Amino acid sequence: MSEATLTFPEADARKLEPHLPPRPSVPAASSPLPFVTLTYATSLDSALALAPGTRTTLSGPQSKAMTHYLRSRHAAICVGVGTALADDPGLNCRVATDDGQPPSQPRPIIIDPRQRWVFTEQSKVLQLARAGRGLAPYILVAAAGPEPPVERKRLLEGLGGKYIAMGEDSASFAMEWRDILRAVKAEGLDSIMVEGGGQVISSLLGATNAKLIDSAIITIAPTWLGGGSVFVAPARRLDAEGNAVAAGRLVKTAWIPLGEDVVLCGKISKIGPTSSLIAP
Amino acid sequence: MSEATLTFPEADARKLEPHLPPRPSVPAASSPLPFVTLTYATSLDSALALAPGTRTTLSGPQSKAMTHYLRSRHAAICVGVGTALADDPGLNCRVATDDGQPPSQPRPIIIDPRQRWVFTEQSKVLQLARAGRGLAPYILVAAAGPEPPVERKRLLEGLGGKYIAMGEDSASFAMEWRDILRAVKAEGLDSIMVEGGGQVISSLLGATNAKLIDSAIITIAPTWLGGGSVFVAPARRLDAEGNAVAAGRLVKTAWIPLGEDVVLCGKISKIGPTSSLIAP
Repeated sequence: MSEATLTFPEADARKLEPHLPPRPSVPAASSPLPFVTLTYATSLDSALALAPGTRTTLSGPQSKAMTHYLRSRHAAICVGVGTALADDPGLNCRVATDDGQPPSQPRPIIIDPRQRWVFTEQSKVLQLARAGRGLAPYILVAAAGPEPPVERKRLLEGLGGKYIAMGEDSASFAMEWRDILRAVKAEGLDSIMVEGGGQVISSLLGATNAKLIDSAIITIAPTWLGGGSVFVAPARRLDAEGNAVAAGRLVKTAWIPLGEDVVLCGKISKIGPTSSLIAP
Repeated sequence: MSEATLTFPEADARKLEPHLPPRPSVPAASSPLPFVTLTYATSLDSALALAPGTRTTLSGPQSKAMTHYLRSRHAAICVGVGTALADDPGLNCRVATDDGQPPSQPRPIIIDPRQRWVFTEQSKVLQLARAGRGLAPYILVAAAGPEPPVERKRLLEGLGGKYIAMGEDSASFAMEWRDILRAVKAEGLDSIMVEGGGQVISSLLGATNAKLIDSAIITIAPTWLGGGSVFVAPARRLDAEGNAVAAGRLVKTAWIPLGEDVVLCGKISKIGPTSSLIAP
C-alpha cells in the first residue's frame, strides 16, 4: 500500500481557498444539503480513463497532493460503485498538515444501489480504517434491494461504517442526487467532494442536478486518451424551442497552473443557457 | 459581414511568441514541410460545436482576437470542407497592427477531396478576396475526381485562388497529411495553422500524423456542450502488447488564462506512450 505523506504547497492552497467549503469553525448554514464540490481529473479529450474498470494516471504528482488536500477540507468524499470496484481506492487523506498532526479524515460515501461492491477486510479503505488512517465508508444502497449480508454488515459497522438504505417504499434502484445529498447532511456531514467515476460525474453535471454543485475543481492534463476511453459529458440539453444548447457553464472561474496540468475552479452558472451560444 | 478590426494585447502576444512559427525575416528552414500549428477552441467535454454543421460560439472575444493574431503570423490557414460548408467562413485576418498597416493575410487552404464545396462569388472568403481584405483559397481536391467546373475555376483563379489536384494516378480520394503539407510548402507557404473542423483536427492528432505538428494552441472554454456534440478525440492507440495507451501528450506546456478561457500551448511529445499511464 503506497502510503507516503503528500505535501501540498500553501501558496497553491491559498488559491483554492475561495472555492472550498467554509472552515468547520464557521457555523454550517441551515441548508438541508451539504456544500458540494465536484472534482475530477480529465484529459484534453474529456476522458477519465483509457477503459472502463481501469485506473489511468492522468495528472501529475501535484494534482494527487491537491486531491488529498481537498479531502482534508471536506467532511465526506463520494465515489460510485464503479470506482470502488475498479480501483480498490483508499479514500483517505494523506496530506501533511502545518502542525504535524494527522490530517482530518473525510467520510467515504459509496453509491452502490445494487450492492455490487463485495468488500472484504482486505479492501484498502477498510484496512486504512482499521489502522486509524481513514474512515470506514457509508454505503448508500437501495431499500428496494435485499438486506445486506450479515457478515459484511458486521465488518463494516465494526470499523465505524454502515449501510444506508435509500428510497424506502420504492421498487426503484434509481437514486436522486438531492436524496443522496440530504442523506449525507442528515449524517452531520456538512460538505462533500464528489470524485468519480464517469457516470457519477456526468449525472451530477446533468441539467437538473448541476445546480446542486457549489464548486467545481477540475484538473486538466495536456494529454489525449483517444477513442474508446471513459468520457465525461453531461446529457444533451434543449431549450424551450427544442434547440440544443450548452449543457452547463462555469462562472467566476480561476485557471491555476499546477505542474504540467491546469486546475479550473468555478461555480456552475445558475442562469439558463442563452441563445447566443449558437451564432448564425 | 461583421468586419470590425480586432485588437489582441501585446502582452498576450508575447506569451504566445515561443509557440509560433519563426518570423518571416528568419530564413525558412529547408524542410519539405511547413511549420504546422494546430489550433482549436473546445469545451470541457472536448466538443467544438453543438451539432455537425452548426457554428457554436464557445470562447470569449479575446479568443477571437487571438485567432486573428495567429492568422497574421501564418502563411496559410487550413480548414476541412465541413467547416467551409457549415460556416461560410471568411478565413481572413482582421487584427490591428502596431503600425496601422493592414495585417498580413494568410492563404486559406481548404481540404475538399470530393469538391463538395460549391462556392459562389457571394461566398464570404471570395468577397473578402475581391475587397482586398483577404486571399482567395487554394482548394485541395483529389486528382481521382472530375475536373472542377470551368466557371467555378475561373471565379477562383480570377481572385488569385486555385484548385490543387492531389494524389495523381490514384483512384483514391483519401489524402495523407504529409502530402497535404508538402503541397502547401511547394506553394512557398512556410507555415500553416490548422483550424478545424472536428474530423480534420482528430485526424491530425492521430498517432501517425501528430508528429507533423510543430505547435498546438488550444483554447478551452469553461463550458460543457453535452452529448450529441461534435467531439474531438484522436483514434485509440495501442502499444506493442495491444494495450490501450494515451493517444498523445503535449510537452513544454504553458497555460495562459485569456478572459474566461485558458489557452494551452505546447509541443507534441515525440516519445512514445509509456506503460506508466496505466497504474495498477
